[in-house]
Amino acid sequence: HRMPRVTVTRRLSFNAAHRLHNPTWSDDENQQLFGPCNNPNWHGHNYRLDVSVAGDVEARTGYVMDLKRLRDLVEQHVVDKIDHRNLNIDVDFMQGINPTAENIVIACWRVLAPALRPAELTRLRLWETDNNYVEYEGR
Amino acid sequence: HRMPRVTVTRRLSFNAAHRLHNPTWSDDENQQLFGPCNNPNWHGHNYRLDVSVAGDVEARTGYVMDLKRLRDLVEQHVVDKIDHRNLNIDVDFMQGINPTAENIVIACWRVLAPALRPAELTRLRLWETDNNYVEYEGR
Amino acid sequence: HRMPRVTVTRRLSFNAAHRLHNPTWSDDENQQLFGPCNNPNWHGHNYRLDVSVAGDVEARTGYVMDLKRLRDLVEQHVVDKIDHRNLNIDVDFMQGINPTAENIVIACWRVLAPALRPAELTRLRLWETDNNYVEYEGR
Amino acid sequence: HRMPRVTVTRRLSFNAAHRLHNPTWSDDENQQLFGPCNNPNWHGHNYRLDVSVAGDVEARTGYVMDLKRLRDLVEQHVVDKIDHRNLNIDVDFMQGINPTAENIVIACWRVLAPALRPAELTRLRLWETDNNYVEYEGR
Amino acid sequence: HRMPRVTVTRRLSFNAAHRLHNPTWSDDENQQLFGPCNNPNWHGHNYRLDVSVAGDVEARTGYVMDLKRLRDLVEQHVVDKIDHRNLNIDVDFMQGINPTAENIVIACWRVLAPALRPAELTRLRLWETDNNYVEYEGR
Amino acid sequence: HRMPRVTVTRRLSFNAAHRLHNPTWSDDENQQLFGPCNNPNWHGHNYRLDVSVAGDVEARTGYVMDLKRLRDLVEQHVVDKIDHRNLNIDVDFMQGINPTAENIVIACWRVLAPALRPAELTRLRLWETDNNYVEYEGR
Repeated sequence: HRMPRVTVTRRLSFNAAHRLHNPTWSDDENQQLFGPCNNPNWHGHNYRLDVSVAGDVEARTGYVMDLKRLRDLVEQHVVDKIDHRNLNIDVDFMQGINPTAENIVIACWRVLAPALRPAELTRLRLWETDNNYVEYEGR
Repeated sequence: HRMPRVTVTRRLSFNAAHRLHNPTWSDDENQQLFGPCNNPNWHGHNYRLDVSVAGDVEARTGYVMDLKRLRDLVEQHVVDKIDHRNLNIDVDFMQGINPTAENIVIACWRVLAPALRPAELTRLRLWETDNNYVEYEGR
Repeated sequence: HRMPRVTVTRRLSFNAAHRLHNPTWSDDENQQLFGPCNNPNWHGHNYRLDVSVAGDVEARTGYVMDLKRLRDLVEQHVVDKIDHRNLNIDVDFMQGINPTAENIVIACWRVLAPALRPAELTRLRLWETDNNYVEYEGR
Repeated sequence: HRMPRVTVTRRLSFNAAHRLHNPTWSDDENQQLFGPCNNPNWHGHNYRLDVSVAGDVEARTGYVMDLKRLRDLVEQHVVDKIDHRNLNIDVDFMQGINPTAENIVIACWRVLAPALRPAELTRLRLWETDNNYVEYEGR
Repeated sequence: HRMPRVTVTRRLSFNAAHRLHNPTWSDDENQQLFGPCNNPNWHGHNYRLDVSVAGDVEARTGYVMDLKRLRDLVEQHVVDKIDHRNLNIDVDFMQGINPTAENIVIACWRVLAPALRPAELTRLRLWETDNNYVEYEGR
Repeated sequence: HRMPRVTVTRRLSFNAAHRLHNPTWSDDENQQLFGPCNNPNWHGHNYRLDVSVAGDVEARTGYVMDLKRLRDLVEQHVVDKIDHRNLNIDVDFMQGINPTAENIVIACWRVLAPALRPAELTRLRLWETDNNYVEYEGR
């Protein structure tokens, strides 16, 4: 008799600067592809990250995972390293990575999937603005 | 020739008090695990419940399900019993259940899945605050 | 060695008038089924459309798809034809279709899936109000 | 010893069709001034109306005004007459009025100020979209 | 030559249980006036409190008031005492007060106005749900 | 016989990088006062700017001001110069100004008040995050 499987999600926020840039291209090529996102003086966003963990509901606690612990782990492994930072320069787990929303969400996954174990990370959703977001499920 | 399958979702709200508590534990154990959520004098939330029903679009109406009927059924079977109530005391379908968000969403599923038939309930998302929610798909 | 697969979503808005109506029924039958949504003088909504495209992240750009190009294509093929219009009268790709949210999202899919290729449209979510939305994944 | 003066606000929603049009002008002049908002086949919005009443807090109840009564009065006098309607055609208190957001909010004031008495209506805020709203304070 | 006067606002949240009740009335009278808000087993809300401070912008810092300090003071004097609590029982500055939104916002003002000095508290806005809020300016 | 006076507001967004820094102080003093906001590698935000114009409703049009024109003027004079830019480096009307939210909103006022004339700018509200905003009314 299996317990029901539920997905729990915690939303966290961070503010960061970035610049889209491929160093193997010329400045003109970067400007043409990334447009204003290539501004050499940076721009920035209020990012929202929705971290989803799925699992059986534990009979003892009624939790899939204590949301306070989920928040603490995401703060320790991601938010504290990335909030009020420059994504191209300051973040150890983003070194050498062009910080598109797609690449940020994959980098966060690579940090969070092991950090949250034995909980099972199943989805990350990263909002870059109120009008666009990316989702990654580890595949 | 099959009709397209669409998911329709109706969001409803309710305000309730609750307390996280496992009666088989000591007060100290409850306090340690649930922290401020264990306050014996209760606290509360504005919950939002997103009820999703999937099915073929009916050619005659262009509906998967009349959203007004979906709203009425969810109000009758869940919201009217749970709104402005205490989830540990007042709600028949929550008796003996520790009202974590996970357990609330499962209890709502057990009430709504039969009540909505023949419509097929496919997902419940319950927001406890603007920063956390749980999802259940009946598995 | 496959690149990670990410879903990117762009939200766009449009304002339109509509009326739910099945011309093969009597006025009474229409009124009974669709209620105030059958008003012969129309009513309207601020629709939000979330367009999701999934694919491998391109190593060169860090993009699944340039979001500016995604926005431009959705504006050209859907928003410019539907914004500030009457969904029963003015929209070529809605001719003869009862404009329920379900039917609108399917019609948008039929326009957008080929228009976005080679990008792969994987989900449309259409919000009709802040309290209800429909989702279609092309099946 | 005066009681503190507090402002209480209730938000309500309605969906309506409209068309901006000045019948004393030519079609070309209307088109030039109002652009797509002049579409003869109408368009529409999900309006949000924030109704604010200010007054002393009543010692007996702790209320400036019972919010349920405020909601009921606004529903009776405005929402029931305007929701799922055409603002140019269907609404008695909008007859002969060009339904810009400015004119709608003034017309609502003229209906609500007497209907809410002895409560003192002090501000109406009408959202036409998520990006624009108008405010009127009866002056 | 005066510096410009700006208002800065910080939004904070807390979750609490409460019950509207006037102990000088009979149960029937309480039930009649407060309806489901009088439930003896409590209900609750996710409250949002917008704290506004106005003043000249300090030339040295560019701040009216350091928002981190504003947040810390509101957390210390209000949120830490009220979050995950019962407003009728647990909160020292609410003793003997019927916890309507109006009375909560006045009680918060009485705590915050002196605690924030020399900064000048100019407005508190308290959201009880997404559809209603109260404002108090200390008069 | 005066026309009613209404306030109309248009919300616009921009994304920018910035750093709080007073060049007349030592690095230690800057770090102590501004904390993570002083990061020499910048951070950033999705700003929202609510631009409010008040005036009599023009009988001919039903407008205080054509919202499309208001949007175009704010885009031309503010958004196009500030979006995807570095507020410390790239913006002509921010030269030599420490880009706190307070100073940004005052700088926008100084640009917009003359640009919008003869319309009367009455309030600017600048959201730096979902939890804090500043307001300026030109005094």
